[in-house]
Amino acid sequence: MGSYAIGLDYGTNSCRSLLINLETGVELGSEVFPYPSGTQGILTCPDDPQVARQSPADYLAGMEKIVRGALEQGAASDPKFSPADVVGIGIDTTGSTIIPIDEEGQPLAFNESFHDNLNAKVWLWKDHTATAEAEEITSLAADKRPEYLKKCGGTYSSEWFWSKILRCLRHDPAVFDAAHTWVEHCDWLPAVLCGQDTPADWKRSICAAGHKALYHKDWGGLPDEEFLTALDPKLASLRSRLYESAQTAERPVGTLCPAWAEKLGLPAGIAVAGGLFDAHSGAVGCAVQPGTLIKIMGTSTCDITVAAKESAAEVPGVCGLVPGSVLPDAIGIEAGQSAVGDLFLWFVNHLVPDSYGASLGEKFLEMERRMKDLKPGATGLLALDWNNGNRSILTDGQLSGLMLGQTLHTEAHEIYRALIEATAFGALVIIRRLEANGVPVEKVVATGGLSLKNATLMQIYSDVLNRPMQVAAGEQTCAMGAAIFGAVASGKYDVATLQQTCCRFLEKTYQPISENVAAYSELFALYEQLHDSFGRADTEPMSLFPIMKELIALRDRQR
Amino acid sequence: MGSYAIGLDYGTNSCRSLLINLETGVELGSEVFPYPSGTQGILTCPDDPQVARQSPADYLAGMEKIVRGALEQGAASDPKFSPADVVGIGIDTTGSTIIPIDEEGQPLAFNESFHDNLNAKVWLWKDHTATAEAEEITSLAADKRPEYLKKCGGTYSSEWFWSKILRCLRHDPAVFDAAHTWVEHCDWLPAVLCGQDTPADWKRSICAAGHKALYHKDWGGLPDEEFLTALDPKLASLRSRLYESAQTAERPVGTLCPAWAEKLGLPAGIAVAGGLFDAHSGAVGCAVQPGTLIKIMGTSTCDITVAAKESAAEVPGVCGLVPGSVLPDAIGIEAGQSAVGDLFLWFVNHLVPDSYGASLGEKFLEMERRMKDLKPGATGLLALDWNNGNRSILTDGQLSGLMLGQTLHTEAHEIYRALIEATAFGALVIIRRLEANGVPVEKVVATGGLSLKNATLMQIYSDVLNRPMQVAAGEQTCAMGAAIFGAVASGKYDVATLQQTCCRFLEKTYQPISENVAAYSELFALYEQLHDSFGRADTEPMSLFPIMKELIALRDRQR
Repeated sequence: MGSYAIGLDYGTNSCRSLLINLETGVELGSEVFPYPSGTQGILTCPDDPQVARQSPADYLAGMEKIVRGALEQGAASDPKFSPADVVGIGIDTTGSTIIPIDEEGQPLAFNESFHDNLNAKVWLWKDHTATAEAEEITSLAADKRPEYLKKCGGTYSSEWFWSKILRCLRHDPAVFDAAHTWVEHCDWLPAVLCGQDTPADWKRSICAAGHKALYHKDWGGLPDEEFLTALDPKLASLRSRLYESAQTAERPVGTLCPAWAEKLGLPAGIAVAGGLFDAHSGAVGCAVQPGTLIKIMGTSTCDITVAAKESAAEVPGVCGLVPGSVLPDAIGIEAGQSAVGDLFLWFVNHLVPDSYGASLGEKFLEMERRMKDLKPGATGLLALDWNNGNRSILTDGQLSGLMLGQTLHTEAHEIYRALIEATAFGALVIIRRLEANGVPVEKVVATGGLSLKNATLMQIYSDVLNRPMQVAAGEQTCAMGAAIFGAVASGKYDVATLQQTCCRFLEKTYQPISENVAAYSELFALYEQLHDSFGRADTEPMSLFPIMKELIALRDRQR
Repeated sequence: MGSYAIGLDYGTNSCRSLLINLETGVELGSEVFPYPSGTQGILTCPDDPQVARQSPADYLAGMEKIVRGALEQGAASDPKFSPADVVGIGIDTTGSTIIPIDEEGQPLAFNESFHDNLNAKVWLWKDHTATAEAEEITSLAADKRPEYLKKCGGTYSSEWFWSKILRCLRHDPAVFDAAHTWVEHCDWLPAVLCGQDTPADWKRSICAAGHKALYHKDWGGLPDEEFLTALDPKLASLRSRLYESAQTAERPVGTLCPAWAEKLGLPAGIAVAGGLFDAHSGAVGCAVQPGTLIKIMGTSTCDITVAAKESAAEVPGVCGLVPGSVLPDAIGIEAGQSAVGDLFLWFVNHLVPDSYGASLGEKFLEMERRMKDLKPGATGLLALDWNNGNRSILTDGQLSGLMLGQTLHTEAHEIYRALIEATAFGALVIIRRLEANGVPVEKVVATGGLSLKNATLMQIYSDVLNRPMQVAAGEQTCAMGAAIFGAVASGKYDVATLQQTCCRFLEKTYQPISENVAAYSELFALYEQLHDSFGRADTEPMSLFPIMKELIALRDRQR
């Protein structure tokens, strides 16, 4: 009789499940559910491109589909499998993705009177309406509570918990007033599965609280009332209806309630683990440990690593350092790049002629084919990867893309390569910042679609980062991390053992090629000049006159 | 009985004719001949993208076609027209476009043993193989003959006479040694028409000599032997086989010889005017006078104006100041931008998806349709127009394009608009430099395909330059200038009267729109920061950090 766990991964456009055998690590089933509402699951507003919301009902509809789908696949693939042998469920979600909740513990959006109000829906992580509020919070914290900023990289983001709530308070007070409390998506779903109707009872994730809500034990949890009052007295009174404590993801938030057990086809009473964010969960699913950086490479890129407690006090410009946010006994460190896959997708959607292929996929393949054998620098191009701002280490949304070195012969596949290189240079900036602050990065493990699909990109990254790049074998590393936490929440397993059993990597590890490393180190020096000149207010002005000439000289040498 | 002249305009990819009635200015006929050799008339080298050569035979084959074609059209359109009433022929060509000539006065390329050697062909103006030689000449002149550089904008170009000859000497001495002399395309064709077999008798154009060959009466003509010896003693000995004097274009170089009269169907003995460059001829065909800047807008843009003699001694960074190179009694001033139409063509050929249209023309129209109503700055983009280097005022081929401000929503038509704006900003830099050195620019007249086809571009230029923009009515302003000189060479006309009779403009003059002028003046200030930071070695380093933020702020205001 085997033992199994299910991990559920709620992404930006869809959710998916993974059913694993905890003794062998074998994956028995996985089902995907695209959110039916809006455009690819996202509710947008024609008047404001910054708005990105979701429907909470999509999450519940998806829950049934993806759990039942995985169980059916499990039964089909292994005759010995029985749903009765599932010991726990873990859940990860995007974040900070927050939901206004009424007094009955229901999303405000389920209430008839708020049914059509976008502000009563889920505020998705990539909603960027709260820029002004984020600046206000950053500026107040810089003045009154500088310790807050040290844990979140120096700038509080418009994507985060308090910015979004303050935005709602300012722009739609009716919604704010009707909300009894607010909850992160990753904290809501476990509570739902456990049948917990009273928000005060809900367990909150240290991952979400620590990375997005300025929660830290050093200052007694959430920001204090005086600080919140200075933003708005109504925020201060909300504080008491939020939470006092937060917990790591391997601790159960409760057990599966009979109603949901029946909907899902699982035994009631099995463990439901604490929620956490997808990237952090994915890092666990990629066997993260100190010295290993996990890059979750998708539309944007999230970098996760862990450091022994107290070894890293502060890494300026890095999104967060939160004890227990990834592995229970280490400091979780998160950084990221705002546009990676999105950047390539923007380019191929808007600027690649059909001579490269009829479909998106054909265009990407043809561009890769035509640029894969180019030597570093041979395009003559150099780009900044800031089309969606910069999350780490500049934490500045008011930045934009830059492309330099174009001639009258520059072709789309060369620009594509330059964009890939730009994201790799951005990744190197983050690694150098980590190492400069006592967080070593010896090895990089990549996961996500890009790492599996684009071998040229992976080699470029290995050459730019000058480090071996391993690739996680499956596409479900986030769900894998969630399943591991689901299993550990049952009390019968520990994280490290399950990582050994379950985490798998491709046989091929990308190794840096020394002549490419040398050329990219030249290019990176130029990238840094652009990065610091356009990205940092405190940079000593430098002459950029040599840049175009050095790019041309390098190009001529490399062709 | 009327009186007529023919102008012949030898462009980069084709040559064309214009037959005009000198009493009425009516255009009776015009024929085009695309050069048959190479790619669109250009002989290229797969190993070196800098090579651009032409076949001299193409010019002669074209001569017959375009003259006979114009005469036939003339007869068809006006029963009173007779070829016997043509009083003169004028010719303009691209330049510096130079031909190695043997002792018999024939192009070396006509000689069997050099038939397949690209270095024995015509070295087209846009051949960029002689970069190192141009630098060597500039550096020697800066050291020994600074006066040379003052007349050519401070830098001797790789596109010019001596650079190309020195390149040939260094890289293909067999061709150099076999060449008895070298001649500009615009000087060769008039000599051919007059049946002049002896190169020593050939008249040389002050336009070509002064703008491209460092010829000036202040130092007794061509560069002295000591200077040339310092480059290479063989250049010094070539000097005596070149020329001692040069003349303005209204002076005849001779009369049409019987052999060519028969080929062309014209009376022998009519006047053949001195040759000149296409842009200078086009300026005459656009009624250039002091205070008026003519912009010949094609693949690249050439700016021509004239100043009363001695009013302008030097304009740093402007390609040349040559007495008599445009109008006989004024200083001809030439500046230019290396890529304008070429820049848009590169973009639409390489980076515009087929969703804008199936053909090049459809794509341009759709892009114009989608961007024409955008307000200045609404794209959030800012570009440098240096994809083909910068001719004025930086005179630096080792520069490249730059595009800044891209988001994940930036579309092709927005980039197209930013590229147009970049060329307009580049045009403004030139005008400001002229005015700062005593050459006023009150009005701008545009000619060339772009000025007739792209109303949005013309309005953007008027707004950026903050000046009214007139548009020449015909597409054949260069051939018109040549026809005017052909007529004047007959001794029966003067330039000013013919300009009055023959030069026509569109009814619509583009007028600057004040709110656009204001927004573009903000954008131009940012353009100047990029221009000076990346383009000038002597710029005091400045912080570029505010640029992206100011572009975003302006964008948000203008949308």
